[in-house]
Amino acid sequence: MDTAAVLRGSGVSPGAGYGPVHLLVGSIPEPAPGSRYQGEAAAERKRAADALERVADDLEARGAKAGGAAQDVLGAQAMMARDPGLEVGVAERIDEGVAAPRAVFEAFGKYRDLLAAAGGYLAERVADLDDIRDRTIALLTGLPMPGVPDSAAEPYVLVAKDLAPADTALLNRDLVAAFVTEDGGPTSHTAILARAMGVPAVVGCAGATSIGQGTWALVDGASGSVRLSPPRADVDALLGAAAAREAALSASTGPGTTSDGHAVPLLANIGGPKDLESALAHGAEGVGLFRTEFLFLDRADAPSEEEQEAAYRAVFDAFPGGRVVVRTLDAGADKPLAFLPPSGEEPNPALGERGLRMFRKYPEMMESQLGALARAAAGTAALPYVMAPMVATVEEASWFVSACHDAGLDTAGIMIEIPSAALRAHQLATVVDFFSIGTNDLTQYALAADRQVSGVADLQDPWHPAVLDLIALAADGAAGAGKSCGVCGEAGADPVLACVLVGLGVTSLSMGSPALPWVRAALGRHTLEQCRTAAVAARGALSASTAKDAARAELPGLADLGL
Amino acid sequence: MDTAAVLRGSGVSPGAGYGPVHLLVGSIPEPAPGSRYQGEAAAERKRAADALERVADDLEARGAKAGGAAQDVLGAQAMMARDPGLEVGVAERIDEGVAAPRAVFEAFGKYRDLLAAAGGYLAERVADLDDIRDRTIALLTGLPMPGVPDSAAEPYVLVAKDLAPADTALLNRDLVAAFVTEDGGPTSHTAILARAMGVPAVVGCAGATSIGQGTWALVDGASGSVRLSPPRADVDALLGAAAAREAALSASTGPGTTSDGHAVPLLANIGGPKDLESALAHGAEGVGLFRTEFLFLDRADAPSEEEQEAAYRAVFDAFPGGRVVVRTLDAGADKPLAFLPPSGEEPNPALGERGLRMFRKYPEMMESQLGALARAAAGTAALPYVMAPMVATVEEASWFVSACHDAGLDTAGIMIEIPSAALRAHQLATVVDFFSIGTNDLTQYALAADRQVSGVADLQDPWHPAVLDLIALAADGAAGAGKSCGVCGEAGADPVLACVLVGLGVTSLSMGSPALPWVRAALGRHTLEQCRTAAVAARGALSASTAKDAARAELPGLADLGL
Repeated sequence: MDTAAVLRGSGVSPGAGYGPVHLLVGSIPEPAPGSRYQGEAAAERKRAADALERVADDLEARGAKAGGAAQDVLGAQAMMARDPGLEVGVAERIDEGVAAPRAVFEAFGKYRDLLAAAGGYLAERVADLDDIRDRTIALLTGLPMPGVPDSAAEPYVLVAKDLAPADTALLNRDLVAAFVTEDGGPTSHTAILARAMGVPAVVGCAGATSIGQGTWALVDGASGSVRLSPPRADVDALLGAAAAREAALSASTGPGTTSDGHAVPLLANIGGPKDLESALAHGAEGVGLFRTEFLFLDRADAPSEEEQEAAYRAVFDAFPGGRVVVRTLDAGADKPLAFLPPSGEEPNPALGERGLRMFRKYPEMMESQLGALARAAAGTAALPYVMAPMVATVEEASWFVSACHDAGLDTAGIMIEIPSAALRAHQLATVVDFFSIGTNDLTQYALAADRQVSGVADLQDPWHPAVLDLIALAADGAAGAGKSCGVCGEAGADPVLACVLVGLGVTSLSMGSPALPWVRAALGRHTLEQCRTAAVAARGALSASTAKDAARAELPGLADLGL
Repeated sequence: MDTAAVLRGSGVSPGAGYGPVHLLVGSIPEPAPGSRYQGEAAAERKRAADALERVADDLEARGAKAGGAAQDVLGAQAMMARDPGLEVGVAERIDEGVAAPRAVFEAFGKYRDLLAAAGGYLAERVADLDDIRDRTIALLTGLPMPGVPDSAAEPYVLVAKDLAPADTALLNRDLVAAFVTEDGGPTSHTAILARAMGVPAVVGCAGATSIGQGTWALVDGASGSVRLSPPRADVDALLGAAAAREAALSASTGPGTTSDGHAVPLLANIGGPKDLESALAHGAEGVGLFRTEFLFLDRADAPSEEEQEAAYRAVFDAFPGGRVVVRTLDAGADKPLAFLPPSGEEPNPALGERGLRMFRKYPEMMESQLGALARAAAGTAALPYVMAPMVATVEEASWFVSACHDAGLDTAGIMIEIPSAALRAHQLATVVDFFSIGTNDLTQYALAADRQVSGVADLQDPWHPAVLDLIALAADGAAGAGKSCGVCGEAGADPVLACVLVGLGVTSLSMGSPALPWVRAALGRHTLEQCRTAAVAARGALSASTAKDAARAELPGLADLGL
């Protein structure tokens, strides 16, 4: 690839980032069987021994830095890398003419089998051994090290085919300048993570994984461009503009409103009390989506009502006078729970027993969650809202709202994330107290395009005019019955789309906290009428991309923000 | 269960059936280890030997009836059942006190292992051996024989938890009086099969699998009732009414039309040339859905263009002057093809790369199918229509229509089965030549409820007012551009819903052929205005069941047909 090239993708998290590329590789390929080296055996043996030693040193250095239990674990791994038996195994194979990478692979293979056969504690060490093997082979073959670096001389641009939660669990925010992925769309894990962390990001960037390791890249998370080895002047210009925008953003404070004073409360999406600090720091006026799954995942039994009550109370107490919208358990599909199995095989879990459908099957689970919420809500200074995910019909909505009211929870609503709910919003609005639109699932179902599959990523775009139609139906339905209609999906975090949503009649916006200043600034630069005109323009378009262009053309204040 | 009870489910295939219940069991459970018999060893040995002999006799009798290769296969199986070694193995265990069913299980187990270890041809006989074992154990324990009976003194009512394609592949239509399943909804395999075969059927019938084997049951496939051990007078009344309706139906011939002369062409859904006979016999005016998957499934490579051309020509030639709507390959999801793999893992294949999305990935496959269709269409006296499945966006539709026109196919359309396509019908209608609504998938996506999962079966109902909204949007969009809009999903086969569809603006109806007379008769008993009034009433309802009731109340002519 021309190192001065410009690659293009979708900008999904605004801001500018500049740094050397770190290419994330999922796994190190097996060196070809029968591969031979050229030259002296002694030199090849030394190459292998040096690589093993460097891996061991690196593990020790990381251990020393981490300290505590991690130091013990990494120290033990370093000892494995220095095992004399392994080194002999590698040397013997090299003496038979086998190239160092293959020799390492084979010698480790024998140890691997022994460990696996031993069972128990030793078998659990197989993953550690594989990690040492892969690191050594990477060094020998010039491949990038597997995994995300946990130290770097300067922040790097993380480039990957796609980022999975496992890849990013240990990511150090201070070391990452930007994300660039070859796959993925605006609702991919990478996009969501980037916005949550406030990292500039470009997804769906063709050719990204062919960028050379260490190439310096300048990433514009708004326009979606990735410039390789750019001239210093370009870097300064983009970073300077980004800094100026940051300043403009930090100047934008207070409640969300259009420039002509139409109030649009700006709320935070949170996954538990741990996210409160960021929500408050970014000026959230309340919580628009409190996902309660964190209490239920990765455990053998359901949490007690007392445990639930304490977690809910912690969030309520953070927003005296503010709205806190709690979503009841959204288990099933990609979040299965061992203690709430579905009725049978689910060939398409996203279309199966998830969300409120699980509560229809396990009503005692709903009773326990609503009971805990009611006790946490009693006496709080917040305004507690409770809503159910995955509501398709009026019967389901009525059943849930009655259960909430019976439990003593006064404000009960539903997510609008299934097309039927948006289409029937005018009826649903008469039985619920509020709506909150989940644009991610709504887009997935409206376009029949899995959020998790890159092969249909181009269809997973909340800008698609059909999705805007459904949002308009939901907002109109709510308005007709005098109810509120928020958005708590990823769409609300896109400052351009946020203006369109307000133009469609959405009454509040909730998002990952780092997006709040962007959306506040974008809204504050436009009148409600401009937002409405942009919405009409977007709905008149034939495609998602032309809808975005049409809306932009009606929103002149975006230029200020480099959007 | 009270043997005079009445069970209720959903009537999904009209007509009446009466016969003894045959309960379909999936597999014979393993007799408990260590189970002992009471009484004399000699008697228990004789019981086992008699059962084996009866199984062998039965296999031979079936072979003699079938003749040819089947006789050889079944004869060989009978010889296995009479193997003296097996009988000794059973007798030895019985002498040690083991009960006959368990003794059979264990003795067969030893043979089973020997066969499996032998590999090759012998290993493939394991399934035959298991079949003999299960039949023998069923006889010894009083369980029903596994599988569908291939002979019976009189037609039976087949009762099962649910029917899978494998269960019904060898079904003899003349031996089946009705289907009753405990699971399943209006779009389940059982419902589709029943309508295709013209067998009365009730699905979602709680308690069905608890009906005693051999109990006489009277099944009303219209009302959904299943009466057990009914008095003869009731049987005569229902069968008499059904016969009268059959007479009324056979009197209803000619093209489809409302009573005031609004033409609604009635077309057949077919899966290949084999279905043409039934289509013509039931008076189809053409083909509204020709599924081309049969050419592609269960083979290692794609069919040649010549092979495709011949199959398409056979169907065109059957309808000189009539419309034949061919749907291009709908691979992926529940119909994966080995030679067209998706890009990666698909956690929800129904939301993944299927239908036209596969052609975007494998354009050469589309080119070959369109080329074969164009050559088959050249010079035909039929009116060839070609349409793509799984279209979500205007871009996709334009791409497909251009490809059809370039190939020389003049009439190119799309399925409306994704909510976004219905919502954007007014735009799509300007780029395509016609629409055909696939109500099964449209319902699945609009309600986010998997067609294959019984846990969400109550949501998979095309009567849901949100589905009717989408159908109305599609029909209005087509009408606005002067294009036609048919329905080729299961909804068209429901005579009541068919009237509502016409009232919503649908211009033709396609269905499994046996439903054609029912729909023709129902339409012919109502004016277009009555259909429109019924459609308005249905869309005003809050739920699928109240929508159906509201529509019925506006369609007085249904009473004549016992609907």
